[in-house]
Amino acid sequence: MLQPALEPHHDGSPLYVSSGHPELGEVVRVRVRIPRAWGDARRVLTRSNPDHEPRFTEAEIVARDDDAVWWEADLTVENPIHGYRFLIERADGTAWWLSARGLSRTEARDMNDFRLVSYPEPPEWGQSTVLYQVFPDRFARSELADRRDLPDWAEPAAWGDEVIHVGPSTATQFFGGDLDGVREKLDHLVGLGVTMIYLTPVFPARSNHRYDAWSFEEVDPLLGGDEALIRLVEAAHERGLKVIGDLTSNHSGDAHEWFRAAHGQPGAAESDFYYWLDPEQQGYVSWLGVPSLPKLNWHSRELRRRFIEGPRSIVGRWLAEPYSLDGWRIDVANMTGRYLDDDLNQEVRRIIRQTMIDVNPDTLLLGESTNDAASDFTGDAWHGAMTYANFTRPLWNWLREPGSPAPGGINVTLGRTEDFSGLEFWDQHRRFTAELAWRVRLHTMNALDTHDTPRFLTHARPGAVPVAFGLAVTLPGIPVVFAGDEFGLVGDDGEHSRTPLPWDRLAEAAGSIDLYSALIGLKRAHPALNGGGLRWLHIGDDVLVFARETADETALVAAARADVVVELAAGSLGAAVGDVERLIGEAALDIGADGAARIHSTGMSFTAWRLPGVALPAFRRPGDDAETLAGSGDVTPELAPEVF
Amino acid sequence: MLQPALEPHHDGSPLYVSSGHPELGEVVRVRVRIPRAWGDARRVLTRSNPDHEPRFTEAEIVARDDDAVWWEADLTVENPIHGYRFLIERADGTAWWLSARGLSRTEARDMNDFRLVSYPEPPEWGQSTVLYQVFPDRFARSELADRRDLPDWAEPAAWGDEVIHVGPSTATQFFGGDLDGVREKLDHLVGLGVTMIYLTPVFPARSNHRYDAWSFEEVDPLLGGDEALIRLVEAAHERGLKVIGDLTSNHSGDAHEWFRAAHGQPGAAESDFYYWLDPEQQGYVSWLGVPSLPKLNWHSRELRRRFIEGPRSIVGRWLAEPYSLDGWRIDVANMTGRYLDDDLNQEVRRIIRQTMIDVNPDTLLLGESTNDAASDFTGDAWHGAMTYANFTRPLWNWLREPGSPAPGGINVTLGRTEDFSGLEFWDQHRRFTAELAWRVRLHTMNALDTHDTPRFLTHARPGAVPVAFGLAVTLPGIPVVFAGDEFGLVGDDGEHSRTPLPWDRLAEAAGSIDLYSALIGLKRAHPALNGGGLRWLHIGDDVLVFARETADETALVAAARADVVVELAAGSLGAAVGDVERLIGEAALDIGADGAARIHSTGMSFTAWRLPGVALPAFRRPGDDAETLAGSGDVTPELAPEVF
Repeated sequence: MLQPALEPHHDGSPLYVSSGHPELGEVVRVRVRIPRAWGDARRVLTRSNPDHEPRFTEAEIVARDDDAVWWEADLTVENPIHGYRFLIERADGTAWWLSARGLSRTEARDMNDFRLVSYPEPPEWGQSTVLYQVFPDRFARSELADRRDLPDWAEPAAWGDEVIHVGPSTATQFFGGDLDGVREKLDHLVGLGVTMIYLTPVFPARSNHRYDAWSFEEVDPLLGGDEALIRLVEAAHERGLKVIGDLTSNHSGDAHEWFRAAHGQPGAAESDFYYWLDPEQQGYVSWLGVPSLPKLNWHSRELRRRFIEGPRSIVGRWLAEPYSLDGWRIDVANMTGRYLDDDLNQEVRRIIRQTMIDVNPDTLLLGESTNDAASDFTGDAWHGAMTYANFTRPLWNWLREPGSPAPGGINVTLGRTEDFSGLEFWDQHRRFTAELAWRVRLHTMNALDTHDTPRFLTHARPGAVPVAFGLAVTLPGIPVVFAGDEFGLVGDDGEHSRTPLPWDRLAEAAGSIDLYSALIGLKRAHPALNGGGLRWLHIGDDVLVFARETADETALVAAARADVVVELAAGSLGAAVGDVERLIGEAALDIGADGAARIHSTGMSFTAWRLPGVALPAFRRPGDDAETLAGSGDVTPELAPEVF
Repeated sequence: MLQPALEPHHDGSPLYVSSGHPELGEVVRVRVRIPRAWGDARRVLTRSNPDHEPRFTEAEIVARDDDAVWWEADLTVENPIHGYRFLIERADGTAWWLSARGLSRTEARDMNDFRLVSYPEPPEWGQSTVLYQVFPDRFARSELADRRDLPDWAEPAAWGDEVIHVGPSTATQFFGGDLDGVREKLDHLVGLGVTMIYLTPVFPARSNHRYDAWSFEEVDPLLGGDEALIRLVEAAHERGLKVIGDLTSNHSGDAHEWFRAAHGQPGAAESDFYYWLDPEQQGYVSWLGVPSLPKLNWHSRELRRRFIEGPRSIVGRWLAEPYSLDGWRIDVANMTGRYLDDDLNQEVRRIIRQTMIDVNPDTLLLGESTNDAASDFTGDAWHGAMTYANFTRPLWNWLREPGSPAPGGINVTLGRTEDFSGLEFWDQHRRFTAELAWRVRLHTMNALDTHDTPRFLTHARPGAVPVAFGLAVTLPGIPVVFAGDEFGLVGDDGEHSRTPLPWDRLAEAAGSIDLYSALIGLKRAHPALNGGGLRWLHIGDDVLVFARETADETALVAAARADVVVELAAGSLGAAVGDVERLIGEAALDIGADGAARIHSTGMSFTAWRLPGVALPAFRRPGDDAETLAGSGDVTPELAPEVF
């Protein structure tokens, strides 16, 4: 059991940082909250690392309440990604580091720093969006689909057929969902409350998943073509829904017009778009050795020009009218531009984002990086990650039925055939998220599952969905509904989970849909659950308790998988003890006169309450109250480096 | 107390890795040792991350002894820095990750991976060298020095004067040590047993430390000029000693010929060598705002050409005849090439190393990076770091007299005004070293102190020097003697510690010198203390016990700061229980018939023993025993990614 509630705290939220999107050179004020129960601090310093050399500033006290003392210091953002941590000298003479890995007596690594980012900021809507993932072949089929001729590769299936998920037909079984089908079901999404549709690829290909595009120039006619996309996006925008597409920047299909022009054709204009293994351009490098997915070579200037660079490139064109997509999810973002001693990943991702900014800065850029996303997701380009190590995998390991078979799907369960305790969930979640810049964390996907994993429900403990999806909507990040989860679908692996949606069973699914809708509504109604700070209060084997905090409100969340009684010591909730409003769930919360609290929860449960916000004075501005600010922002003399 | 002795183990040493210097694309065999006391494994996999996408290979059992089972797998080195870890399924059904951060049930971060490096290898002699740091103005003064005229800035001091370490005379007090003085004392160094001299800068400057060079074209005439350097290096080489110099790649002095040509002179050939703050080239960026040290701008091609690129550059020239330096220590390597949104550090360091290879690949390149060196010290250029976070600071915090004042010197004690336990020493040491590639770790400096810190002895607990320097010579890394430590000198900060060496007190210092000599001799005599693997056996508040292991011998080391009895469970020492030879120190070691061991140590003590080596079959080679190797090196079918 851990009770970090009584430890000093900082995160990247507006309670703690005066500007989440500073310019290079800007002075930012940062705060740290030091609970009185932890001890009085006699001195608090920031430690930055500009140009990889430590630099310290002094903090001063800006607020005191019954529970905590707040310190504030200036930081000058000296590099585009500015790392910092705190050094706290306690009155007992001990010294403590507070970094993104938490509180420690030993020194933190630079990689453990909190981070400020001066790259262009994400669209304002991103941090409060709720994503709904649509796999077009399986979502809904309009009447127009009946009139289309199928290509040779497609093996037609009826909407109610079993999904083939083993063998060669896995990729060719064709249900014929289309974009007009999506458009016709938009009211279902509005009812659910989601705010963004993520469409897996819509370009023409030779598979039902379309990750093997043969062109990026047109929408697959089998989906209704360009006009269907235009109709869908317009209809979505009318309902306040955003729509993002899916691009493969790591590879194309082997039937792609670029590949066909270059394969076996030395001298073709597209020759340098790929990695050839022989001068005849016969052999080539491909995604994990899968021949249908030849890997793109980003040394090629012409490839950049056609695909990613500038408003007329593929990346740019689909964001402009008349298509007006609201952003991209990039497939295999982690491998893009990497091969042997090539590593053009940073260059490619920055070009992609710059192109998007040039066309429409109010667009979102998510990148797939199924494991440790931190090294690429620095805030320079990708706004957030589609990843599984931070949330999906530890969540499965905490809430899966004990003894259930390890499901297939490398993205979920590899290496885990056993249960996690709540402490293990928290340890893994924290280590894979805390070191993301705050704004990247707010845009990183909290998915129970996707088209690449089994469905969460398949092996979940009874009643786990509210807990799992409750965490998805209350922890920082973009909650993900993989279409069909709200119907209570199951599936043993990524392919098996691509079930055509059972629209004829909407009534049966009403309870499940209502649950999703309620939890989505919770996030949408409460700003604390979007940009609010995250303070962990209690972590036990069977329970997670945390607060999301803003100046206006606090959301207190308790997620449990078994009967628990949680005692929160006085001071844990901060000064935010006052009127308590239950938002969802059944657990009991009793707050004593001294501020100590007890949560009593039965069985699998997810509960959230609204408490008052955290009232603090405004951040100091340069020039304010110059006397008490003396020294702030300067290197403290006694900390100045030796004269060498 | 921790006893990692009974946990699975891997490191980068030859017991565990078939090639420490693989080529890109090479197949390397890696091994993991699984103690029987920990449990049987039913399956062991490697997990690499080529192009940031996980890839797994199967291991098989290659050796069993009474204490452990050894597994071996193939890894293909797919990127220049190839990270990997192990996934171990135990017979009880639990799954464990083994990474550079140790054993865990939750997933390791990519940054926690072990690393193989395919960049050009370091010189063969580097990993067994013992460094002696000479600050030329304070080491020894030849008779030639009496004949030299002093420049205006120099304030002459007699050899026995107190060192000024506060105020403006700190940098100008001039004792007049010179390179012939160093040459005349080489026999002292040979007697001590060190094998490499590191000279802080020898270029002409306007300070006693010479980090503000006004030229890199000649050796300071006050030190004897170029000829004195040639004489010194020749004499050193005759005695088997290497000599490395010190370059400032981050800045020059403001009296440097380049800076004088460009300052206030728009249009000068050297204009782009610096960062100007105005078009008139009056204001400029400097090291931490110190005006005498203008920062170099590595965008300049001409600066690269003159300073670092090619055999005729400064970096190259001093390594060639007749000077024949054996390498460089680079000052402020961490800040080099970094300013605002510029980050040319990787480019600059790689050019420096390439130039050295072009002139003489048998040279060593160390870089200063006083805090977290890991992000720059990847093995691509710097062979090792002069750093303080991994060894110096935790060592001070473990062995400093409790209650002693926190000494000045940002490099040692910042943030620590209290004691570490042995566990805290180990935690910080491990976190700041384990994730360095093994070969970088072997070249990273284990310094008790340097010219930038107080002297270790100043506030050490009584009798701590053998423990501290004993750890310096037995943990992986290059042990450092800052000239004068062997005389038992003290000093309150970096400047104060730059004491002229008391050559008239050699006899009094004989005991201390003998201690240093014995410990240096220990390292030089035992290959296990150079490249041998490191297995931590026991960590307590007051004691550290570890083994350095090779096929030929094991060195068992116990370092204690108080009375301790350490029990090592059967299996801890591995199969290396047999003839035991005491190498140094007084602690008692009893090994029972079952292999369990007890170490009994009194007071402050440092003890090392020699035990038999670790006998293992040779690594498999491709083609060996093809039947049992089937599948090795391939992606295991059931681990293959979904067909997407």
